[in-house]
Amino acid sequence: MRSASSLHAAIDLGSNSFHLLVVREISGSLQTVARIKRKVRLAAGLNADNQLSEEAMQRGLNCLALFAEQLEHIPFSQIRAVATATLRIATNADTFLSRAHDVLGLPIEVISGEEEAKLIYQGVAQTTSGSDQRLVVDIGGGSTELVTGIGTEATALFSLSMGCVTWLERYFTDRYLTRENFDRAQAAARAEISKVKQTLLAKGWQICVGASGTVQALQEIMVAQGMDEQITLAKLEQLKQRAIQCGKLEELEIEGLTLERALVFPSGLSILLAIFHELSITRMSLAGGALREGLIYGMINLPVDKDIRKRTLETTQQRFSVDLEQAERVKATCSVLVQHVSGSWGLSEYCQQLLFSAAALHELGLAINYRHGPENSAYLIRQLELPGFTPAQKQLVASIVMNQKGNIDLPSLSQQSALPLQQAEQLCRLFRLAVILCSTRTASELPSFHLSAKGNHLALQIGQQWAIHHPYRLELLQQEEHLQSYVHWGFTLTY
Amino acid sequence: MRSASSLHAAIDLGSNSFHLLVVREISGSLQTVARIKRKVRLAAGLNADNQLSEEAMQRGLNCLALFAEQLEHIPFSQIRAVATATLRIATNADTFLSRAHDVLGLPIEVISGEEEAKLIYQGVAQTTSGSDQRLVVDIGGGSTELVTGIGTEATALFSLSMGCVTWLERYFTDRYLTRENFDRAQAAARAEISKVKQTLLAKGWQICVGASGTVQALQEIMVAQGMDEQITLAKLEQLKQRAIQCGKLEELEIEGLTLERALVFPSGLSILLAIFHELSITRMSLAGGALREGLIYGMINLPVDKDIRKRTLETTQQRFSVDLEQAERVKATCSVLVQHVSGSWGLSEYCQQLLFSAAALHELGLAINYRHGPENSAYLIRQLELPGFTPAQKQLVASIVMNQKGNIDLPSLSQQSALPLQQAEQLCRLFRLAVILCSTRTASELPSFHLSAKGNHLALQIGQQWAIHHPYRLELLQQEEHLQSYVHWGFTLTY
Repeated sequence: MRSASSLHAAIDLGSNSFHLLVVREISGSLQTVARIKRKVRLAAGLNADNQLSEEAMQRGLNCLALFAEQLEHIPFSQIRAVATATLRIATNADTFLSRAHDVLGLPIEVISGEEEAKLIYQGVAQTTSGSDQRLVVDIGGGSTELVTGIGTEATALFSLSMGCVTWLERYFTDRYLTRENFDRAQAAARAEISKVKQTLLAKGWQICVGASGTVQALQEIMVAQGMDEQITLAKLEQLKQRAIQCGKLEELEIEGLTLERALVFPSGLSILLAIFHELSITRMSLAGGALREGLIYGMINLPVDKDIRKRTLETTQQRFSVDLEQAERVKATCSVLVQHVSGSWGLSEYCQQLLFSAAALHELGLAINYRHGPENSAYLIRQLELPGFTPAQKQLVASIVMNQKGNIDLPSLSQQSALPLQQAEQLCRLFRLAVILCSTRTASELPSFHLSAKGNHLALQIGQQWAIHHPYRLELLQQEEHLQSYVHWGFTLTY
Repeated sequence: MRSASSLHAAIDLGSNSFHLLVVREISGSLQTVARIKRKVRLAAGLNADNQLSEEAMQRGLNCLALFAEQLEHIPFSQIRAVATATLRIATNADTFLSRAHDVLGLPIEVISGEEEAKLIYQGVAQTTSGSDQRLVVDIGGGSTELVTGIGTEATALFSLSMGCVTWLERYFTDRYLTRENFDRAQAAARAEISKVKQTLLAKGWQICVGASGTVQALQEIMVAQGMDEQITLAKLEQLKQRAIQCGKLEELEIEGLTLERALVFPSGLSILLAIFHELSITRMSLAGGALREGLIYGMINLPVDKDIRKRTLETTQQRFSVDLEQAERVKATCSVLVQHVSGSWGLSEYCQQLLFSAAALHELGLAINYRHGPENSAYLIRQLELPGFTPAQKQLVASIVMNQKGNIDLPSLSQQSALPLQQAEQLCRLFRLAVILCSTRTASELPSFHLSAKGNHLALQIGQQWAIHHPYRLELLQQEEHLQSYVHWGFTLTY
């Protein structure tokens, strides 16, 4: 008998690795409690007739025995186990699946490429922000999914029979990273994509999101090299150039590329280059989740906002008992301050959204302690998953929040790559003023004030009567004049 | 009109500083949202006739104006403002209190020395662990409180007219740190204490807790110098020696002593030495709170367990949504493992309590993320206030929790001073095994096993049938054999 449990599990029998993900739902957000990955290399066990070898089956069954132990007390209705490319094509898949059922204690669904694409799209929609008209790209070991969609609805679904493992075996057989090998790999990939190109282009998209090891590896490389996190054609071409310089797969060395990802990186890169060229993609960002997240979110029905960030901010505030009224006050004050300087600084809607996110989360750290509140808020923002926020956006929000009061740490503002430094500084300066103006946690009205910006200089004029009657905030504003001047931010206070 | 609010505020008009503390209650634990301290030096404004000067009053009123701004929307019933020594003796206190009432918007109570002692005792009882038969010592600027009590009830209350500010002015007038000055200061303090000595000794105590800047400064010095956190007579004598070597107050330099605390440190030290000698105290620990905490806890009625740590663990688990069943499972398993090795390791009740605390909190970090779960748990334990745990105990629990799985970081276990390294390692080793045995989060029974310890060597024998049917845990135990051997912890697994 399986008893009630708040746990949900997703199992994904991929061509290269098997994965188990176990989560708990806590007030509208998911908490991962176990994650197991084993490189089963199932695809490597297929012979020329697509027959799965006994050894490969045994590797798979051993892995499933480990998973089974983790699933003992989770009700069947809260587990979903799926198999993809390799088990779609293996001629003796049934044999394996029957033995797997015995070991795992529950049946495994072999899902179609289309179903896989749909689940990946769901996983992306539930964890990724930005426009909700998307193209989602997932380069797996044995297949590549291309999906367009609006909101949580996929509009076109394709699963192509190419993957970073199959392309490695087929086009980099000699393990040389020559231009010729790359060209052949890219050409073959373009041929595959060309079959579905028209449909995808007809559906269209506003943003392009990548959800695979290849895209994750790219992200890690860019972070390690201090670049911003958008993947562009220029960056891909540059990395291909670098790979060719390395000569051989065994000698591939790129700053930020881990050993684990290196083997299938060139083949994945060639597929991604083909996708960029064939579909005229200019930029791609990293998804927050894919197949496994699609499986989990499919079992747990969470409301989906148009922008996933809203849900993330709300559930995070709730989990850390944030004083919602205070967060709202700071947000509203930020909004007023942005209006005041709109003439000269003209902060974009995107900038404002990031500023408002900082307002929502700036007191997270009080759940840990008061003394290091701002640092702890920043720590949490960097470490939390925060679906809908990219690593660079988290870094920006964290650096604003860390600098919400007291001494200003300029380096932290330049360590983020979500915004140009000047804009990050502008957001930080407005945020600090908002925090001061709201520092008494009261619903009392803001002072009548005028804030103006001239280039790098800010001038704040407040009413004399207000200043006299609010000595605490006056003191903070006077200190702020000094603190901003220490980092050469011009700031004048008059009253 | 003041609207409903979850905020509570405590204001303390001390002889040296005025303090404001604002907290929110969140599911049984307190979250500080504002803390303001101003060195008003009210006592310095008393003349020979105990008349408060206009300048001193003005400094006080300016500070209260800042506080008033923070209190605007907190209902009166949720604020308590008290004044101590200086306003008890100032002949024109009424003039100041009337003006202060106008500025603050609410009356200030001048509390008696006995009432102050009672509140301090409450603040200690609500935040400090250990035996509940205590002697509490608080050395303020103008008075020193000595209180005995059992549980939350004070049994004898004394407020003596000596403090680190008055003793500085009286016995270190020339600012020289000579043996003579120390001797005179100590003798005078002993004379004061001798008046109340008999009553205190008659009431008796099991533990002695210090709650003042002097004791806090000592704690900081000991942490900085890598000592354990218990204050002993030997340590106090050694610091006095060191102070005398420095010669002058302006030249006082002790590793870990901050500039802010240095001025009144020698005078506070002389009072503390007198207390140790006169009352034959052998060791003293630092309290988690005092007067302001007493005021706050007096307004918010929280249940008090015999051991405050139980409440702390429960509210912390609740705030970070810890899986309580899993915490309980790991604790129960720890308990069984401790039994198995009781013959050779013989872990004390104190050690076991710390181990159980680690079990309660080891998954805190999952509220942040899965990947760095153990590190985040350790981070939270170090940063959270955790009433009832001393800094060294927090450090120990954090280091066990950080090493709950994966590679073992030995240095972290030696960086704590709550337990000898060998015992800390023993706790850590048992904890790791408990985490492995419970790693499937299921209520299934533990394997029949036998764990034995011989010196530094652990031998775990598990049933063969269990091993076959639990490959995941078997794999973890096999890994554990390697991981423990890397750090030269002998560990043998047989099945």
